[in-house]
Amino acid sequence: MGSVKIKTPVIVLNVKAYRESAGERGVTLAKTCEEVTRETGVTTAICPQQVDLALVAKKVKIPVLTQHAEPYAAGSYTGHVVLESVKAAGANGTLLNHSEHPMKIVDIDAVIRKAKELELMTIACTNNTDVSTSIAALHPTSIAIEPPALIGSGIPVSKADPDIVRNSVEAVKMIHDDILVLCGAGISTGSDIKAALELGVEGVLLASGVVKAKDPKAALLDLASGVP
Amino acid sequence: MGSVKIKTPVIVLNVKAYRESAGERGVTLAKTCEEVTRETGVTTAICPQQVDLALVAKKVKIPVLTQHAEPYAAGSYTGHVVLESVKAAGANGTLLNHSEHPMKIVDIDAVIRKAKELELMTIACTNNTDVSTSIAALHPTSIAIEPPALIGSGIPVSKADPDIVRNSVEAVKMIHDDILVLCGAGISTGSDIKAALELGVEGVLLASGVVKAKDPKAALLDLASGVP
Amino acid sequence: MGSVKIKTPVIVLNVKAYRESAGERGVTLAKTCEEVTRETGVTTAICPQQVDLALVAKKVKIPVLTQHAEPYAAGSYTGHVVLESVKAAGANGTLLNHSEHPMKIVDIDAVIRKAKELELMTIACTNNTDVSTSIAALHPTSIAIEPPALIGSGIPVSKADPDIVRNSVEAVKMIHDDILVLCGAGISTGSDIKAALELGVEGVLLASGVVKAKDPKAALLDLASGVP
Amino acid sequence: MGSVKIKTPVIVLNVKAYRESAGERGVTLAKTCEEVTRETGVTTAICPQQVDLALVAKKVKIPVLTQHAEPYAAGSYTGHVVLESVKAAGANGTLLNHSEHPMKIVDIDAVIRKAKELELMTIACTNNTDVSTSIAALHPTSIAIEPPALIGSGIPVSKADPDIVRNSVEAVKMIHDDILVLCGAGISTGSDIKAALELGVEGVLLASGVVKAKDPKAALLDLASGVP
Repeated sequence: MGSVKIKTPVIVLNVKAYRESAGERGVTLAKTCEEVTRETGVTTAICPQQVDLALVAKKVKIPVLTQHAEPYAAGSYTGHVVLESVKAAGANGTLLNHSEHPMKIVDIDAVIRKAKELELMTIACTNNTDVSTSIAALHPTSIAIEPPALIGSGIPVSKADPDIVRNSVEAVKMIHDDILVLCGAGISTGSDIKAALELGVEGVLLASGVVKAKDPKAALLDLASGVP
Repeated sequence: MGSVKIKTPVIVLNVKAYRESAGERGVTLAKTCEEVTRETGVTTAICPQQVDLALVAKKVKIPVLTQHAEPYAAGSYTGHVVLESVKAAGANGTLLNHSEHPMKIVDIDAVIRKAKELELMTIACTNNTDVSTSIAALHPTSIAIEPPALIGSGIPVSKADPDIVRNSVEAVKMIHDDILVLCGAGISTGSDIKAALELGVEGVLLASGVVKAKDPKAALLDLASGVP
Repeated sequence: MGSVKIKTPVIVLNVKAYRESAGERGVTLAKTCEEVTRETGVTTAICPQQVDLALVAKKVKIPVLTQHAEPYAAGSYTGHVVLESVKAAGANGTLLNHSEHPMKIVDIDAVIRKAKELELMTIACTNNTDVSTSIAALHPTSIAIEPPALIGSGIPVSKADPDIVRNSVEAVKMIHDDILVLCGAGISTGSDIKAALELGVEGVLLASGVVKAKDPKAALLDLASGVP
Repeated sequence: MGSVKIKTPVIVLNVKAYRESAGERGVTLAKTCEEVTRETGVTTAICPQQVDLALVAKKVKIPVLTQHAEPYAAGSYTGHVVLESVKAAGANGTLLNHSEHPMKIVDIDAVIRKAKELELMTIACTNNTDVSTSIAALHPTSIAIEPPALIGSGIPVSKADPDIVRNSVEAVKMIHDDILVLCGAGISTGSDIKAALELGVEGVLLASGVVKAKDPKAALLDLASGVP
C-alpha cells in the first residue's frame, strides 16, 4: 500500500465506536487480527477507535490506521486528529471519507498529499462508481467502495450490486493502476469475500460483521478461508 | 469535579495537536504534570491528543480528559469519539466547546447529560460572560473562560480583561455554585495564575505556554508557585 | 418583538424547503397569512424559503424572517446569509437554531448581538427546558420550544408534553421576562393553539400543518380561531 | 452550459455577501450585467445573494445562479437551499464548492445529479489541477479554477500561475470535453480576461473586482473589452 507495501488480498477491520471495540476489547480485537494473519497468512489491518490508536499501535505488528484525520499540519488544534500525530502514535495511515464521516473534496486532496509526505497510507471510502473515479484522480493508496445502503445490512455488496464493484475497479485502475480497490458493506463470510475477490477487488473493509460477532476470531477465520 | 471530586486550584493542560505533544512526547508531558503534582501538591489534569488518550490514561494517575467528544452513545460511528469509549480508555472526562472546536448548543447539552450518566467530568470553554452564563444553565462540572483573541497571545486574560473573568465567576456561581470556574488564554507564569485566582477562579486552562516551553517542567513548577 | 414590537399572540409560519412553499407558492402563502391577519386580527409572521426572502418581503406587510442566518458581518462569503443582507432584503429578523439547522452556541450569541445592532428580531428554537434556559441568557427576542420528536408528528407539544412548555415559559421569564415564548411541533388546529396559550406561551411556530394543508387559508383560519 | 446552452466566453459574477451587492444594489448589479451583455454581446451571468435570488431572477434575462445549494430533494429542511426551490425561483443553476463554501464530495456528486434531472447548470469551483480532474469525473456543466490564495488579491491567476489554468483545462477536457472551464481569482481587467482566454478557458468567475468597483458598469465594460 503505497510506501507501506502490504501483501494482498487484505482484510481491513474498522472497529467504529462500538462498545464491543472500546478500550481493552479494542486491543483484544487487534491481537485477534494479528493471530489470524499469523495462522492463515492472510493480511489484516485494523482501524482502532480514535482514542485507542496509540495504545493499539504499540500492541500489534499488523498495519494500524486511524478512522479519520484532518488535513492540518501539527499545531494549535483542539480535539482534531492530524496525520503527524497518527505517525507519532506508531500508526500507518488513515481511513478517509467514510460514509459516517464524509469529507470535503479539498480536505480529501490535502490529507492524501500530507499522507504521502509522511509515508502513510490512505484508504478512501466511496459510495458509487463516479465518486470512486473522482477520488482516484487524487491518488490515494486505496479506494474502498461501500454503498451506504448496504453498510451493516448483512447483504454483501458483491451479491447485491456486483456491477458497482466491477465498474469501480475498472474505472479506478484506468486512472492509476496502483490504487488498491477494496469493497465493503455487508461482507461477513468467507464466501462473501471470495465473491468480492472474483469481481476484481484486492481486499475488503469490514466492521460489525466481526466486531459484533459472538466469536470475532471464528468470524475472521471464516473470512480468511475465502481468500484463495 | 462533579462525581470525580478534585482538589482545587487545578492546572489543566490541553496539549492540543502540537508536534511537541504527540506520541511519546505526550506521555512525557503527562508524567511531568504528575511529578509536579507530587512535588508541589497542586492538582494538575491533562488533555492528551485524541489518538494518545488510552495510552496516556494508562501511564498517569492524574485526571485525564479528552479534548472533544460527541454526544452519541457507543455505536456505528467512524472517526468520532464517544464518551463510553473515553471511559473505556480509562479517562475521566472531556473538554467541550473549545474555540478550536466550537459545538452546537444541543450537543453541549447532550454531552453534559451523557457525561453525568457515566460519571465523567466536563470542562466547557466559553468566550464571553453571556456564553458562560448560558452554558452554566446546562450544568457542566466546570466552565473555562477563554477569550479567543488572547489564546496563544502570552497576554494573560487576568490582566487583559479582569472584568470578563470576575463577571463570569459571578454569573456562573449564581446559576449553579458547584460549577468550577477556570480561566485560560495567555496564562503562562506563576504570577498570572496568582492574579487569576484572586479574580475568583478555581484554576486555569493552559496550552502553548507549557507545551511549547523549552522546559515544560520548569514552566509548570513556576505556574504551581503562583498557587497559594 | 424587541425593537420590532408585535402584538401577541403570534402565529409564525416556517415554510421550510417544501415544494408547496417554493417560488410563487411561497408568495401566495405569505399573502394568505396577511389576509388571515387582516380578517381575524391575529398577528402572523412568515419565514420564506431562503431564496425567496427579498421577493416575499416586497409583497407583504406582515413580519418576514429568514430561516437561518450566519453571524458574519457583510463581506466576502459565498452562499451564506448574513443579517445585513436580510435587512437589505426588507425582512425583519431570523429564526435561529432550528432542529433542522442546529447552531454553535458562539454563533447563536453572535447572531443575537448582531441582530440587536440592526434592530432585527430573533426567534431561537430549543429542544428542551435546559436549552431554553441556556439560550434565554443570550437574550433573543423570542424562544420557540420545539421537541424534535414531535416535529411533523401531528401530535401537539401542548398535549404530548405540557410540562416542557410550562417549565420553559417559567425558566425563560425568570431570566428575561421580555423574551416571548412560543411553542412548536405538532400544532395544527385552533384547539392546539388554545391549549398552548393556556400553558403560558405567547404564540406558536408552525410548518407542515399549514404548508401541506389542502387549504392553507382554512388551516390558518382554524388556527386563528383558537386565539381568544 | 449543459441543457441551458450559453454562448461563450462568459463572464460570471458572484456577488458574495457584500454590503455593495445586497437588496436593491444586487438588483442593480444584475441589471448592469444585462446591459453590458446587450451593449457588447458578451455573455454574462450572475450569482445573487441567496436571499435575493428569486427577486433578481424576476428582473433580468441573463442566467442567474444561486451561490450554493444542498443535495436534498425539496422537503422538511429549514434554512437550506434546495435545487427545486432554485428552479421555482426562476434561476438557472448553482455555484458549487466555492472556497468560501467547500463541499463534501458526496454532496457535490449528488447536487450535480439532481441539477441534471432539473435541467439546471452547475459551476463547480476547484483549487488546484488534481481537484479539477477529480470533479470533472462528476461531470458538472462547468469547472471554475480559483486558487484560494489569489481570491480578492487583484493578482490574476492567468499571470500568477498560468500552468494551473492550462493544466486544468487539459485535464478536464480529457475527461469530458463538454465541461466549460472558467478561471477566477484576481481577474479584474480586460487584459486579465484576454490572457485567461489565451490559456484555454471559456470564461471567468469574478467577484470583488466588479462588486466593489467605484463604477461596476465601467469595470464590466473593461472586462468585456478583453473578449475578442
